[in-house]
Amino acid sequence: MPTATIGPELQRLIDLLAKMPGLGPRSAKRAALYLLKKREPVMRPLAFALDDAANKVKACSVCGNWDSIDPCAVCADSDRDQNVLCVVEDVSALWALERAGAHKGRYQVLGGLLSPLDGVGPDDLNIGALVARAKEEAVTEVVLALAATVDGQTTAHYLSEHLVGVGVSVTRLSQGVPVGGELDYLDEGTLAAAMKTRRAF
Amino acid sequence: MPTATIGPELQRLIDLLAKMPGLGPRSAKRAALYLLKKREPVMRPLAFALDDAANKVKACSVCGNWDSIDPCAVCADSDRDQNVLCVVEDVSALWALERAGAHKGRYQVLGGLLSPLDGVGPDDLNIGALVARAKEEAVTEVVLALAATVDGQTTAHYLSEHLVGVGVSVTRLSQGVPVGGELDYLDEGTLAAAMKTRRAF
Repeated sequence: MPTATIGPELQRLIDLLAKMPGLGPRSAKRAALYLLKKREPVMRPLAFALDDAANKVKACSVCGNWDSIDPCAVCADSDRDQNVLCVVEDVSALWALERAGAHKGRYQVLGGLLSPLDGVGPDDLNIGALVARAKEEAVTEVVLALAATVDGQTTAHYLSEHLVGVGVSVTRLSQGVPVGGELDYLDEGTLAAAMKTRRAF
Repeated sequence: MPTATIGPELQRLIDLLAKMPGLGPRSAKRAALYLLKKREPVMRPLAFALDDAANKVKACSVCGNWDSIDPCAVCADSDRDQNVLCVVEDVSALWALERAGAHKGRYQVLGGLLSPLDGVGPDDLNIGALVARAKEEAVTEVVLALAATVDGQTTAHYLSEHLVGVGVSVTRLSQGVPVGGELDYLDEGTLAAAMKTRRAF
């Protein structure tokens, strides 16, 4: 498309929209036109919400979940089971488990998975925090809710070895999780069943 | 999902993202997490670009295209053919024709199509501006580049009747087999039209 047709402000908006997962160059144009038609109800509120969330949403200093309060709402909820700690790769996995209502305890977000090929080692993940929490708190069980991928299972083995001396039982999601599946893409029923039938690691 | 898990700032951002075409509730969550990971390179610039475009991008007072200058870059381009005026439903159709390099003249954006069922009448479209431009300027041909739908063809007929006395030739896009199209996948109406308007090889 000749640059003459689309002005610089609009082109920059389209280029930024196209970076979002789920939007390509053409759907970003469609989104930009939609937003220009909905300036007051959607476009300006979205600009504000982006800025607001960028300023206020931070990683929880306890578990790594993203929230505007610290500790996050999950950590601050005294009704949640303090004995069971669920280890997840990232916040999207945490949200997936919450969506399924599969876990009533608390979480530890690792911030990734061990991946020698991608150069991700133990120091890049929140493993120290996990081991410390498993030791210091009233934790009796650590559930390794990690993806059924090579990296996920490698990470699970590594973590279970580091939790052996801590005196907690280490469990993992049952093999209801399809091999190669990401938690974020799983249906709630499968996630709930996998949590229910978790087994000793 | 329990409201406790996702804070209000984040939830509002997700709700607004989910309103965009191409993003549903789940992909909006994924987009929000992506943006939080890319605060400085994408999230804050996107907030600024939305606000900036909402302030600066306006409908061209001549043709209805969206641009930050008025008249828009297409209308202001003296190299474009002043004799051929192309009528499109909306700005996305204008961009599609520009992407194809299919039209070297200027445009008139109608702002919709006549649709009695949806309550869209002639007064809701920029028909007065179109007829005035067809009369006043050096226009010799008006191309009705409208969708091959019932509403599109109804609108084309209506416009052609109002352009009869103006002294311009009124044309429309030809109908037929799309480039790269398999006959087997085409609907009967398109095939019949393509056969009826067949040309010498």
